[in-house]
Amino acid sequence: MKEFELIRKYFSERGPKRKDVVLGVGDDAALTRVPQDKLLVIATDSMVENTHFFPDTSPRSIGHRCLAVNLSDFAAMGAEPAWASVAITLPTVDEAWIEEFANGLFEVAEYCNVQIVGGDTTQGPLAVTVCLKGFVPENKVLLRSGAKAGDWIYVTGSLGDSALTVASKLNKINVPAGLLAQAEQKFNFPVARLAAGQVLRRAATSAIDISDGLIQDLSHILTASKVSAEIDVASLPISSAVTASLDEDSAIVMALIGGEDYELLFTLPEEQKGYLEQNATAMGVDFTCIGQIRGGDNGISLVKAGDKYPTPNMNGYQHFSSEEN
Amino acid sequence: MKEFELIRKYFSERGPKRKDVVLGVGDDAALTRVPQDKLLVIATDSMVENTHFFPDTSPRSIGHRCLAVNLSDFAAMGAEPAWASVAITLPTVDEAWIEEFANGLFEVAEYCNVQIVGGDTTQGPLAVTVCLKGFVPENKVLLRSGAKAGDWIYVTGSLGDSALTVASKLNKINVPAGLLAQAEQKFNFPVARLAAGQVLRRAATSAIDISDGLIQDLSHILTASKVSAEIDVASLPISSAVTASLDEDSAIVMALIGGEDYELLFTLPEEQKGYLEQNATAMGVDFTCIGQIRGGDNGISLVKAGDKYPTPNMNGYQHFSSEEN
Repeated sequence: MKEFELIRKYFSERGPKRKDVVLGVGDDAALTRVPQDKLLVIATDSMVENTHFFPDTSPRSIGHRCLAVNLSDFAAMGAEPAWASVAITLPTVDEAWIEEFANGLFEVAEYCNVQIVGGDTTQGPLAVTVCLKGFVPENKVLLRSGAKAGDWIYVTGSLGDSALTVASKLNKINVPAGLLAQAEQKFNFPVARLAAGQVLRRAATSAIDISDGLIQDLSHILTASKVSAEIDVASLPISSAVTASLDEDSAIVMALIGGEDYELLFTLPEEQKGYLEQNATAMGVDFTCIGQIRGGDNGISLVKAGDKYPTPNMNGYQHFSSEEN
Repeated sequence: MKEFELIRKYFSERGPKRKDVVLGVGDDAALTRVPQDKLLVIATDSMVENTHFFPDTSPRSIGHRCLAVNLSDFAAMGAEPAWASVAITLPTVDEAWIEEFANGLFEVAEYCNVQIVGGDTTQGPLAVTVCLKGFVPENKVLLRSGAKAGDWIYVTGSLGDSALTVASKLNKINVPAGLLAQAEQKFNFPVARLAAGQVLRRAATSAIDISDGLIQDLSHILTASKVSAEIDVASLPISSAVTASLDEDSAIVMALIGGEDYELLFTLPEEQKGYLEQNATAMGVDFTCIGQIRGGDNGISLVKAGDKYPTPNMNGYQHFSSEEN
């Protein structure tokens, strides 16, 4: 396992060196300092070959995504990331692979000022588990449980690119090459909406990141907040690659149930609409109002041009699925 | 993936409920409170089938070990464990397997008052990654780097049971059934020396847990502390199962290089010997002086009855190996 020792050193000598890290890689555990009056935030996500990525996925994308999906959980809570532990399981030591994986990982780590403080390197089937730690002020954390009847429902960015990429890879949909490249970029290199999370923690009543698909993730908010929702499917910010590749109804379904877009879904009281507009630039991403929270426990009602719209079959594109936290 | 949702709920409703957990499983991330004036401690270890455990290993042992090996890192730092994230990758949903895995995990979690605050459940080859978090007073943390020339070298418990178990499983050694059961118990259900770590953080100058084998782990202390060491192999606390199964020299070699015993190796100044004796009961485990720290960077010298003893081939029993932190 000398080779794995080298890998660990490779990873331990790159990326941001934060002042709140007392001891990084190299002892039995890492030691860090959490600011007073802040809560520690902890998120964990695994990525496993053939479940979360295809065997031909570039190692740079795997390195990028394994950190980005955890950062997306932080964005959804309005939290600030700080330190990550990276556990990698590799069948063999392929230096070119490791270099590209590290490039993808550290591009994201540098951008978000996250220090890799430890982890584990083992031999076995290809998989990566990242445990991300950071902090949030206790009275400003964004939870899933605060949505109130009357709140407006928003989503950042656009929807469906990741589902389109997966469907194309599985030869279920024929996507024009230029549009596919655009969708693949979103799937392979998702950008966590951290700036938006920071803005929203002063205004939104609830938030979640869209990893399992809009309908499924909205359901999590509704269950936690004990409310219902009405979504106008005509207002969904569907990715242009999706609308160009599918008929209208199929595109709507893909935007509703496609996973892994890592956009934020949030609820906003009427009186905070002005604040959101004023801070549109600070959000760092477009946002779209797609519906409204209702009382009761009636789940999600879909409408289009005032008429009821059918609820899609939830198993449509869920080939790659993940359970979070 | 509904089945995996059920697993997650199964895990989230068991074990200790700590007051310092603001939000456990169920949102995008967990929220906890770190005591003021303490550092956050973070350890991560993966266990992968065919690398860290045999395919016929009981799921209860896997559940026990995946947490215990991280607790052992905490013991080696004198740290107090608090919260764990558990990422499990499973090929299929086998409820009997999961129940026994959870039984093993929660037996350890209950005993050490560790709350499972999150994780991930995914489909793929069997593997578990635990990220353990907790805390330690800043001025009392046990590092690898504090050993001084003249300090005495100690080890807790006994050595070689795990290596004996692995060698027996691989049919390299014939071990009598009663002794094998004793060795297997130590391999399958290691006990982290947390109480010893708490005692030692007031007295020891350095510590590490023996996961890679005595010689390799002692080397980590020597490198970090820039010192050398002399070990009297006649004083090694070799497991009775090992001494009964092997000739004397083979037993010594197994105790020197066998991994996964999860005992503590620590260095103690002469003037702290009295403190250690006074707190022998609080240590919760026997301890044995096996040598002394020397100046310089000459590595490890082995002696027996005053004569030089040959350094063993390091690749002898390292079939199952792990890289820590």
